[in-house]
Amino acid sequence: MTRTYLDYNATAPLRDEARAAMVAAMDLVGNPSSVHAEGRAAKALVENARAQVAAAVGCAPSEVIFTSGATEAAQMLAHPRPGHDVFVQDTAHDALFSHLKLSDWPERPLGPGHTLAMGLANSETGVITQPPEQIDGQWPYGDTARADWLLLDVTQAVGRIPFAFSWSGADFAILSAHKLGGPKGVGALIVRQGVDIDPLTTGGGQEMGRRSGTENVIGIAGFGAAAEAAARDLADGAWDRVAKLRDMLEDAIATGANNTIFVGKGGPRLPNTSCFVAPGWKGETQVMQMDLAGFAVSAGSACSSGKVRASRVLRAMGFDDIAAASALRVSLGTATTEDDILRFAETWLAKYMKFRARAA
Amino acid sequence: MTRTYLDYNATAPLRDEARAAMVAAMDLVGNPSSVHAEGRAAKALVENARAQVAAAVGCAPSEVIFTSGATEAAQMLAHPRPGHDVFVQDTAHDALFSHLKLSDWPERPLGPGHTLAMGLANSETGVITQPPEQIDGQWPYGDTARADWLLLDVTQAVGRIPFAFSWSGADFAILSAHKLGGPKGVGALIVRQGVDIDPLTTGGGQEMGRRSGTENVIGIAGFGAAAEAAARDLADGAWDRVAKLRDMLEDAIATGANNTIFVGKGGPRLPNTSCFVAPGWKGETQVMQMDLAGFAVSAGSACSSGKVRASRVLRAMGFDDIAAASALRVSLGTATTEDDILRFAETWLAKYMKFRARAA
Repeated sequence: MTRTYLDYNATAPLRDEARAAMVAAMDLVGNPSSVHAEGRAAKALVENARAQVAAAVGCAPSEVIFTSGATEAAQMLAHPRPGHDVFVQDTAHDALFSHLKLSDWPERPLGPGHTLAMGLANSETGVITQPPEQIDGQWPYGDTARADWLLLDVTQAVGRIPFAFSWSGADFAILSAHKLGGPKGVGALIVRQGVDIDPLTTGGGQEMGRRSGTENVIGIAGFGAAAEAAARDLADGAWDRVAKLRDMLEDAIATGANNTIFVGKGGPRLPNTSCFVAPGWKGETQVMQMDLAGFAVSAGSACSSGKVRASRVLRAMGFDDIAAASALRVSLGTATTEDDILRFAETWLAKYMKFRARAA
Repeated sequence: MTRTYLDYNATAPLRDEARAAMVAAMDLVGNPSSVHAEGRAAKALVENARAQVAAAVGCAPSEVIFTSGATEAAQMLAHPRPGHDVFVQDTAHDALFSHLKLSDWPERPLGPGHTLAMGLANSETGVITQPPEQIDGQWPYGDTARADWLLLDVTQAVGRIPFAFSWSGADFAILSAHKLGGPKGVGALIVRQGVDIDPLTTGGGQEMGRRSGTENVIGIAGFGAAAEAAARDLADGAWDRVAKLRDMLEDAIATGANNTIFVGKGGPRLPNTSCFVAPGWKGETQVMQMDLAGFAVSAGSACSSGKVRASRVLRAMGFDDIAAASALRVSLGTATTEDDILRFAETWLAKYMKFRARAA
């Protein structure tokens, strides 16, 4: 059976550029910490990838710390400073929410001595949150509410929407390689020049002393190549075509199932993500039925699959339990075709009609 | 110029089996946390690798937690239990020493409520330390000195000497893939069934809730294949041949430079490691001269390259500052040939004679 992969927000297929870079890196025998020629060659490859990632993220190479993914990057900031509270946006990814949840996103104005942690683009809905810094140059919490630091989870945003760390106003950013076509298990913490954090791991002193442990050389090579290719695709307008396919999908679904709710439609969203609610039809059931029919989609972030029934993110947006448990996330990539979308909509609508008939 | 790589303790070349497994894994698009077919296929690959690593380490698959390397694995045990002290052997690797150094290796007997952390085989010298449990079934600190837990760093030992976690008496073990021919940036923490530790990272709840973050699927596939191949090589006696080459190297060096000290010679050592001291000739200088002549060797663990001049490990063994700064580590692999060894010895001896002539 033909499989159609529409779960790019869970993870994207490995880009050809990343594959080639990784296969080439397999021939480098050295440990980047070794001083001999083999070690220096491995180190040079890591530094080349650091420059590629920095260019894609819009920061300086020295601001990039390679990690084993966004989760580890978030963890490195769990305790940025003694006595320094971290407030987490209630729609943020579990990785941020669990690590950094010293306090929920504040309803009251914040004084100094705090960090705000938020996702730039939500993995479940694709909704883009404007960083507080960028709202008329004011924090939304009033003039006196300037938190010390802003942490942005840009995992779903980099390579899909224009973003540069340097003009984001953020002090930290976290991202992972596999959402932009690199390998799973590698990511980065971006730390603004001049900001000092304690290392999570010590020992060998790699990554300028900020993250010890022998580098994932092959994975880092893939991350760098994927980041470079993703930035090029974005500049070339590849995601404009994807946004049109996403709109075509939503039009087809809306026409056939006119009480479907499209989460975040009309506001700023990622170009590739559609999250829609068919009230009463459980998202998990939809995922299983579509999987059997050959389509890979999701009922929430992959990391929370099988763990929660009602989406915390949708609950936080004001949806009730039934609606929040009835959402499907379809996330497209640059390889997605019109045929993929039309077949998906046709199959989903047929199953939806059966659900309606049973429920009636 | 022909390059001869004799720095296997820093990192080993990627095994063909690991390369093939990694390239195959590149075709799996799914996130192991996703419930659809693509996700389940990625999950199955991770579980297959877990069984391969478990077989090589001699433990149950459920005792294997994949990490980004031995350093992260050590870090996960930095605070195994509130109020629980960790004592670290003074010759242990920096990763253990820095993370776990709540107290130095004790000279006094230990009461319960403590963890002993030690390296099974030293990366700089190859010297094998017998775990306390195995000395006549007694801890060396007396009958009342039973620590609660024993942590073994088996990074340099697995695949080179017979070892099984199940009979080691250890409660925890840490290792990395790249020392046994897998990729850099992946490793494991082995936790004895029934022992409970707090996760270092939370969020997605991967690795049975013990280590969150999307899995390094490609790297884990390489780790599994390399572990399986390493265990097979060990069973086939591949390292007996390596030990003969190591002895041949030491004989050649001793014949030409008869005041050289071979660290740990005569006691239990890894089959592939020779650490020798040419008093007064700095190890760093030796490394650079041999590098220029085409040989990759080391003056200590790769992770401490360029950071310390006198080896902490050799100091702990009783060598004075000058001797501890004059050590060279030559570490062989199963691909090392007699020709490699003889050319190395000839080149090293020629340079040593020049050093002696200048020093005289």
